[in-house]
Amino acid sequence: MSDDPFEDPADTREEILAATYRALRTHGYADLTINAIGDEFEKSTSLVYRHYDGKDELVLECLSFMLERFERRMTDEDIADPRRRLEAFLEWGLDEEMPPARRKMVATLIELRSRAVHDGDYTDHFTKSDAVFEAHVADIVRSGIDQGEFRECDPDRVAATLVTMLTGVMFRRSTHESGDWLEDVRTEIEAYLDATVYSE
Amino acid sequence: MSDDPFEDPADTREEILAATYRALRTHGYADLTINAIGDEFEKSTSLVYRHYDGKDELVLECLSFMLERFERRMTDEDIADPRRRLEAFLEWGLDEEMPPARRKMVATLIELRSRAVHDGDYTDHFTKSDAVFEAHVADIVRSGIDQGEFRECDPDRVAATLVTMLTGVMFRRSTHESGDWLEDVRTEIEAYLDATVYSE
Repeated sequence: MSDDPFEDPADTREEILAATYRALRTHGYADLTINAIGDEFEKSTSLVYRHYDGKDELVLECLSFMLERFERRMTDEDIADPRRRLEAFLEWGLDEEMPPARRKMVATLIELRSRAVHDGDYTDHFTKSDAVFEAHVADIVRSGIDQGEFRECDPDRVAATLVTMLTGVMFRRSTHESGDWLEDVRTEIEAYLDATVYSE
Repeated sequence: MSDDPFEDPADTREEILAATYRALRTHGYADLTINAIGDEFEKSTSLVYRHYDGKDELVLECLSFMLERFERRMTDEDIADPRRRLEAFLEWGLDEEMPPARRKMVATLIELRSRAVHDGDYTDHFTKSDAVFEAHVADIVRSGIDQGEFRECDPDRVAATLVTMLTGVMFRRSTHESGDWLEDVRTEIEAYLDATVYSE
């Protein structure tokens, strides 16, 4: 996933979603207002009001847009090197030198996901998004097995575990003072992959 | 950890914290007000106002109280059966039939932890709480090694991994529509413990 999913908006709708994303990163969800989104938008704020009823509608459409973009990119690519692909996926969240833009994006996603505790529309989104990421990881593992590079393991089980682990890593990174624990976790994930997924 | 940390308040302060905890579970953080806390409190709401400046002060003290209680209980007990102790700790979060009161408590903790994305006081609390849980798991693993029941593994590394995994599990459980993935994750955690921690 690129660290700026809105670098090249195709139309007014995408420009509004890009403005929503930037306003979210700046203000966080609690202080997000349609006016704050309007400030990030090059055209008139009234256009935002005309297209959307409230901030949740905008935020959820912004999340869907990002997820669809990820899904489209993933299905476009052949899985030529499953091990490299799996490691690239994990590295997105595990990278110790995570670039500031991505760190902000992760923190925003964590904040929005936590809304799902009380809001079913967010639950729907994150249930769907987990399914997309799990299917992606399971596809990589399946093609690694087919190509003889991975062991005969259960792709869905590995995918559920890695996506849950990454969710935990990203939640902790956004809500914990230090990253001291991260190297330990990386080491154990590598050991898990060596023992369960990669061929000897 | 018991599912009701405030079953037997010792004084007015603990009664106020118990009322805060109940109001949090009912209203969630966003709709929590001092008046809502007063409604859960048997004495006068003005007592709450007299002791505390705002809801975050109350919520953070409530979290500290729960953490100290956990810590005290853990250090009081001898680790007689390390494997059973480790499994009891994990089961608290992994239990497929999680009782409704605990489910509510987990959801409340997730919601509060997500505040740490923007609020340093919450970051401080959850950094400390992670350290307490990691130290607890590392102690169990260390005593398992000493008693010859566990392999020669790195207790801190295992602790960081299990606490991160449980954080991911609890975050997903509170923000995901179904628990279909949970059995897969449990199976892989057991496989990890068999391969890394438990003696053959």
